[in-house]
Amino acid sequence: MDELIAGYRKFRSEIWPTERARYEALAHWGQSPETMILACSDSRADPQTIFAAVPGELFVVRNVAALAPPYEPQSPGYHGTSAALEFGVRVLKVRRLVVMGHAQCGGARALVYGPPPQASDFVASWVEIGKPALPQDGKSPSLPEAEAGLVRVSMANLMTFPWIAEAVAAGRLSVQGFMFDIHNGVLTRVTAEGVEPVE
Amino acid sequence: MDELIAGYRKFRSEIWPTERARYEALAHWGQSPETMILACSDSRADPQTIFAAVPGELFVVRNVAALAPPYEPQSPGYHGTSAALEFGVRVLKVRRLVVMGHAQCGGARALVYGPPPQASDFVASWVEIGKPALPQDGKSPSLPEAEAGLVRVSMANLMTFPWIAEAVAAGRLSVQGFMFDIHNGVLTRVTAEGVEPVE
Amino acid sequence: MDELIAGYRKFRSEIWPTERARYEALAHWGQSPETMILACSDSRADPQTIFAAVPGELFVVRNVAALAPPYEPQSPGYHGTSAALEFGVRVLKVRRLVVMGHAQCGGARALVYGPPPQASDFVASWVEIGKPALPQDGKSPSLPEAEAGLVRVSMANLMTFPWIAEAVAAGRLSVQGFMFDIHNGVLTRVTAEGVEPVE
Amino acid sequence: MDELIAGYRKFRSEIWPTERARYEALAHWGQSPETMILACSDSRADPQTIFAAVPGELFVVRNVAALAPPYEPQSPGYHGTSAALEFGVRVLKVRRLVVMGHAQCGGARALVYGPPPQASDFVASWVEIGKPALPQDGKSPSLPEAEAGLVRVSMANLMTFPWIAEAVAAGRLSVQGFMFDIHNGVLTRVTAEGVEPVE
Repeated sequence: MDELIAGYRKFRSEIWPTERARYEALAHWGQSPETMILACSDSRADPQTIFAAVPGELFVVRNVAALAPPYEPQSPGYHGTSAALEFGVRVLKVRRLVVMGHAQCGGARALVYGPPPQASDFVASWVEIGKPALPQDGKSPSLPEAEAGLVRVSMANLMTFPWIAEAVAAGRLSVQGFMFDIHNGVLTRVTAEGVEPVE
Repeated sequence: MDELIAGYRKFRSEIWPTERARYEALAHWGQSPETMILACSDSRADPQTIFAAVPGELFVVRNVAALAPPYEPQSPGYHGTSAALEFGVRVLKVRRLVVMGHAQCGGARALVYGPPPQASDFVASWVEIGKPALPQDGKSPSLPEAEAGLVRVSMANLMTFPWIAEAVAAGRLSVQGFMFDIHNGVLTRVTAEGVEPVE
Repeated sequence: MDELIAGYRKFRSEIWPTERARYEALAHWGQSPETMILACSDSRADPQTIFAAVPGELFVVRNVAALAPPYEPQSPGYHGTSAALEFGVRVLKVRRLVVMGHAQCGGARALVYGPPPQASDFVASWVEIGKPALPQDGKSPSLPEAEAGLVRVSMANLMTFPWIAEAVAAGRLSVQGFMFDIHNGVLTRVTAEGVEPVE
Repeated sequence: MDELIAGYRKFRSEIWPTERARYEALAHWGQSPETMILACSDSRADPQTIFAAVPGELFVVRNVAALAPPYEPQSPGYHGTSAALEFGVRVLKVRRLVVMGHAQCGGARALVYGPPPQASDFVASWVEIGKPALPQDGKSPSLPEAEAGLVRVSMANLMTFPWIAEAVAAGRLSVQGFMFDIHNGVLTRVTAEGVEPVE
């Protein structure tokens, strides 16, 4: 009756037997992922699934709208995303840092149209990180424009972290942006200039 | 050559064809997950895999050590985890809120032994959320004790959010804790009193 | 000259300006009502008015006598009320399902005294759903008895829908009955045992 | 704490005092509405609100997508909407019968894209009433096209009821179609030929 536990039992019976050696090695040697992904919490845009990843492959931080705040180590508050970035980049030394947004993002909608009325405590101020994605002239962007814009804002904010900028400058780290389209399952690359298909 | 893109191609050729109808329905009707999971960013403890979940099933927030901060809407800063909690509980109205810690957690190690020297900007202050998990007498806990303790701290902090406490009191939401053991792939339930096997 | 259009103009000039932000949020975020009401089509017992509800608050199905048929997905025909129940309970996940009958109900009168002679096609068979509300001994109940009885029949029929019974058992949904007295404007709670005032 | 009961108390304190005489007259003399409205159950498209109607003014049937089935008195099953039509047209002798659809209708979406996966018992077969609104060539209509099309299908089905067609032919009854746009609060008239603004 409990779907979550039923899923775990399925993992035990179907996935664990084939992945056991990998998990054991990962337990003995620790994790050493090459890629860190900043993705949205949306249940339809799971990075492990979309990149068909195996255990140990992706270090993943997920929050509303896949947002990276700017580097502000002196400011008070809880820096959950920044701490994950620091752990991934400085401790695990990932070589690739991916921001993956997606179509029909509730966070993008909250930025463009205002948050849902019942979510007044945190969602509104969180998505304000994405404000630079809105047009300067005060016009409302389309949702797809805002969604791609949020990926670009996060990518730009990542470069305000000195140890990210340094690693990128040294060629040890690349920062990449993607968008996932839930309706047709297609991944698109987001760059500062535009979007292009992933072949 | 590019493993990440190779993984996406595998998704397109092997996963998308069987999941297409599900993604299309999720695009047309929006997400409606029953479960929200607060998990660690660790690449070896992916909740989608461990619960053998399908697209649309889990709303996921991942940060270092699966930590929930206390409810502090007035304090400044970026409330990424709190915003995700608000979106999951108040907007999506999930019925189950799960904290999933795991063995060999770098965040727990940072709490007990201090953060890695090269991660001085954010990791140390972030894992301080878990300080109530440390013994009052100043002794160092074992890592497994600290890991289970962090799950309990997060569960307790979740109950400081008034709309979580209200939903729990009304029977609309349950808060559950789990630990995943990377070495043997076993999930354990964490309660205030102890840990117990998941059958 | 056209009263209906005059009413719409009044809505535009008097209601829309104050409710505009609410409608816009409801358009952007979709509806998320907490309550579903099964009410009578009677023009004197409008649930939106009696519960002083705002847009987005009540998902409403109205038919003759506020009747819920039993769960019969295999039987042929048009299952309008059952489809609305399914949409409210399974898709919108309302937390409260209300049956609101009312005094001087034409449907109750049709059940007790037979339908009006000119309404021979559908009314008679529709109100037969309420037959269990009639005394076993063949005696005619009073109209108020029949009206409260119809609410109880609908509440009992609702519990034959497996996804309603499950949600009630899990504490996610409550089923409640009410009667509205047109003459004195008083709402009364209807339970299996009797009726009691709403304070 | 109970919003529904709080709404009722507001009705008692704010609405009842000014509407008391009207309710009392409606209790003594019975209802005699001029207009019957077939509307959607959607919480954002309440006809009482949109037509700023007073108690006694509108006889209302609400179901998913404001659908009228065709006249089929011999077929088995529960004819809830047809019974309400019979009560309104033959017993109450309304002079106007209105079908009011609305933008962003979940029923229209279910018709065009398939029902939500979790609503498999009744929603899919119910919205099939609207199938004639879909293009003959198998192409998917836009949602606004489908929504207006559903109003036309319901209007056409209404004319299959002999006592509706007779009353229309005799000039005693008019059948009218409208669409309500939730986002901008504008009502549009739907005719067989197209849509036109309501001034």
